[in-house]
Amino acid sequence: MTRTPPYRDQFRAAVDTVRQEGRYRIFRDIRRKKGAFPCATWFKDDLKEQDITVWCSNDYLGMGQNECVVEAVKSAVDAAGTGSGGTRNISGTTRYHVQLEAELADLHGKDASLVFTSGYVANEAALSTMSKILPGLHILSDEMNHASMISGIRNARTHKHIFAHNDIADLEAKLKAIPVDAPKLIAFESVYSMDADIAPIEAICDLADTYNALTYIDEVHAVGMYGPRGGGICEQRALMDRIDIIQGTLAKAYGMIGGYIAADKVIVDAIRSLASGFIFTTSIPPSTAAGALRSVRILKISPEMRDQHQDRANALKARFRSAGYPFIDGDTHIVPLMVGDPVKCQAISDRLIEDYGIYAQPINFPTVPRGTERLRFTPSPFHTDAMMDELMAALSDVWAAYDLPREKVA
Amino acid sequence: MTRTPPYRDQFRAAVDTVRQEGRYRIFRDIRRKKGAFPCATWFKDDLKEQDITVWCSNDYLGMGQNECVVEAVKSAVDAAGTGSGGTRNISGTTRYHVQLEAELADLHGKDASLVFTSGYVANEAALSTMSKILPGLHILSDEMNHASMISGIRNARTHKHIFAHNDIADLEAKLKAIPVDAPKLIAFESVYSMDADIAPIEAICDLADTYNALTYIDEVHAVGMYGPRGGGICEQRALMDRIDIIQGTLAKAYGMIGGYIAADKVIVDAIRSLASGFIFTTSIPPSTAAGALRSVRILKISPEMRDQHQDRANALKARFRSAGYPFIDGDTHIVPLMVGDPVKCQAISDRLIEDYGIYAQPINFPTVPRGTERLRFTPSPFHTDAMMDELMAALSDVWAAYDLPREKVA
Ligand SMILES: Cc1ncc(COP(=O)(O)O)c(C=O)c1O
Ligand SMILES: Cc1ncc(COP(=O)(O)O)c(C=O)c1O
Repeated sequence: MTRTPPYRDQFRAAVDTVRQEGRYRIFRDIRRKKGAFPCATWFKDDLKEQDITVWCSNDYLGMGQNECVVEAVKSAVDAAGTGSGGTRNISGTTRYHVQLEAELADLHGKDASLVFTSGYVANEAALSTMSKILPGLHILSDEMNHASMISGIRNARTHKHIFAHNDIADLEAKLKAIPVDAPKLIAFESVYSMDADIAPIEAICDLADTYNALTYIDEVHAVGMYGPRGGGICEQRALMDRIDIIQGTLAKAYGMIGGYIAADKVIVDAIRSLASGFIFTTSIPPSTAAGALRSVRILKISPEMRDQHQDRANALKARFRSAGYPFIDGDTHIVPLMVGDPVKCQAISDRLIEDYGIYAQPINFPTVPRGTERLRFTPSPFHTDAMMDELMAALSDVWAAYDLPREKVA
Repeated sequence: MTRTPPYRDQFRAAVDTVRQEGRYRIFRDIRRKKGAFPCATWFKDDLKEQDITVWCSNDYLGMGQNECVVEAVKSAVDAAGTGSGGTRNISGTTRYHVQLEAELADLHGKDASLVFTSGYVANEAALSTMSKILPGLHILSDEMNHASMISGIRNARTHKHIFAHNDIADLEAKLKAIPVDAPKLIAFESVYSMDADIAPIEAICDLADTYNALTYIDEVHAVGMYGPRGGGICEQRALMDRIDIIQGTLAKAYGMIGGYIAADKVIVDAIRSLASGFIFTTSIPPSTAAGALRSVRILKISPEMRDQHQDRANALKARFRSAGYPFIDGDTHIVPLMVGDPVKCQAISDRLIEDYGIYAQPINFPTVPRGTERLRFTPSPFHTDAMMDELMAALSDVWAAYDLPREKVA
C-alpha cells in the first residue's frame, strides 16, 4: 500500500481552483494518420474510435508526414539507433547535430546556431543565461511574449520591463528610462500565434540601434513558412542581419521536435558554454536531427509550399469573412475565431468533434486573456475545399446552437 | 553585412573565462553504429574519420540499438508521421503518449505518470511548480543533486536547505529546524552518476515520515537497470511506495529521449495543470513515445540484461582493482577513474581517442568539484572482454605517460 502523500489536499485544492476557473484541461487522445494528414483517429474512450479532421495542429505544412522527412528519420534510426545516449559534451554530439546546426546558421545568415531539446528550452536557457554574461542587464519584453520567454526572463533575475504589445512608443519610453550605459536586450516574437499578428520588427531594430540594445526574436511560428528560404519574417523583410539572436523551433513547420538559436559565433559559444538547460540534458536523437535537417533543406527550396499554405489560409479567411464570423483577419496563416466565453468555447469544441469529427481545441485562459477565448484554426496545404465546406456547415450549426453573434472583430 | 551585436566583447570575455578555468568544451563529433554499439565513427575533422569504442555513453544497456525498439520507432513513424504537431493540450496527445504514461505509472506502482520533453525538464518543471501548490514550502536538497533539480528548486523561489551528501544526520538537523507545520519536500537522487554511490533511501523515508515531508527522488541513472522490473533502486529495495514522486528519464537505459514523473494521481494532475515547462511546449513525437514504451516493456521482463550489465561493470572494476587504478569502487554500474587534474584529464582523454580509438570523455568542473576530475566509464552489456583488454593496455600507457599514481580512492 502506497502511503498517502502529505499535503495531498493542497494538491487537490490546486486542481480544484484550476477547474473552477474553467481551465481544467482534458487532453484529447488522438492518432494522426501518416499520408492522410489532417485526418486522424480520436480515441473517445477505451472502446470508441472516431475519424476526425485536425484543424488545430502546428505541423503547419504537414512536414511531419513528408515522405522524405520520414525516410530521413528512419534511415538515421537504421544507421545510428534511437537515442543519442549522452549530453552534447558526453558522447551526444553526432554528425547529424553538427550538420543541423550548420544548416540552421545558414538559414538565418548567422555564423552559428545551437540546438536545444525544444523551442521552450531554447528560450528559457538562452534568455536566463544572458544576465550571467551581461550583469545588470535590462530585458525589455513584449507583454504578449510566450511562456517560455517569460520563464527565461524571470529566471534571469535581472531588470525587466514589459512593453505594451507591438507598441513602439511604449518600448521607446521604456528604453529611454534605462541608464544609457546599462546593457539592454529587447525580446519579442515575429508572428504572435494566438492573435495572428506580426511585430513591427524594423521599427524595433531602429530603436535597438538608437539605444544600443541586443535584439532577440522568437520566430517559432514563422520559420519554414515565411521568407524566400523559410528563414521567417525577418528573412521575408530582409531584417535577419539586424537581429542579434534568432530563436526557432523544429517542432512546428519543420514537423519534428527541438528548438534553436542562431547568432554571432561568440554569442552562441557563450550560451553553449554557460546555459544549464543546454549542457545538462541528453541531446536530441540523431534521427530527430536528421529529420529536421531534411525538413529545413526541403523547405529552403520549396516556396510553392509556402504559397499553398497562404492560399489555404486565405481561403478559410474568405469563407469566415463572407459568413460574417468574428475572426481575427490578420496577415498570417493563423485564423482565430473569437468566442469570448470559456464555457461556450469548450462546448463548441466538444460539439464539433463529437458530432462532426472536426477537431479545434478551445484556447482559454491562461494561454489567452479571459474574455478572448477562441478556437484557433491552422489550415495547412492539406486542408481541402471539401474539408472547408464541412467545417463551415458544422460551424453554422453550432454557432447558432450556442447563440453566438456573427460580426467582425478588429 | 550583419551588424556587430552590442556587448560582443562581454560575450567573448565570458567564453574566455570558461577557457581560463579549463572548462571550455569541444564536442566530439561522432556517429554511433547501430548493431555494433559501442562502436562508432569519430569525425576528427572534415576529412578524417576514425573507428572508436565508446566508453562514456549513458545508453547503458544499448537499448538505443535494440531491434524491437528500433522497429517500434520506425513503425510509429510509418503510422503517425514524425512530430506530434502540438502541445499536449492542442492536438499533441496521442495514443502513444497515453499508453506510455500508463506503462510508467505501472512500472513505479503509482496511479499516474506525466511525460516531459526531457528528464531535465521533468525535474525543472515539477520542482519549480511545487511552491505554487504549497506556499511557504521548504525544499531540502542533497548537495550533490543534478543541475536540473537545482534549477527547479531555484526557480521555485522558496525556502531552500542544502544537506550534506547522503548525510542523514545533517538532513535531520535541517528538518528539525523548520517549523513543524511548514510544508516540506526532500529532493534527492538514487544513483549519483558522477560518484557512483546510492542514497540511504530508507533512512530518508523514515525521516520524511517523522517530519511529514514529501519525498522526491531522481532515478534517472537507475530506471531500467535496477529492480526486478527495472523500476529502479526504489523497486529493488521495495521502497517505491514510500516515495511520493519518482522522476526518471527515457534517455539513458531506455535508449530514447524524454523524462517523466510518477506519483499519486492528484499530484500528477496538479503538476499537469500548472507546470509551464509541461504545458507550453510541443509534446514528444509519437514515435519517441512508442520506442520508449517498447523499451520499458522489454526491460520489465529482461532481468538477464540487468545481470549482464552488472557483470560487465564488475569485470571492469575487477581489472581496475587488480591494476591498482584509483577508481571509485562503488555498488553501481558506473566506474569513475580519478585523475584529479583538469588538464591531465583532458590530455589523457585526447590520447585515448587519438592513439587508441577509445572514447572516454573527461569530466571536469562544474560537473564535478575541482580537484576531482575524472574519466567516467560506463560499461554496457556490449563491452566485451577484448574491448576491456584494449582499454587496459591503452590506459597503462597513458597513465604512465602522464605520471599518474596507481592507488585506491576511498
Ligand atoms: C511563441 C512560441 N515560442 C516557443 C514555443 C515553444 O516551442 P516548442 O514547442 O518547440 O517547445 C512555442 C510553442 O510551443 C511558441 O508558441
Ligand atoms: C541525475 C540526473 N537527472 C536528470 C538528468 C537529465 O535527464 P535528461 O538527459 O533526460 O534531460 C540527468 C542527465 O542528463 C541526470 O544525470
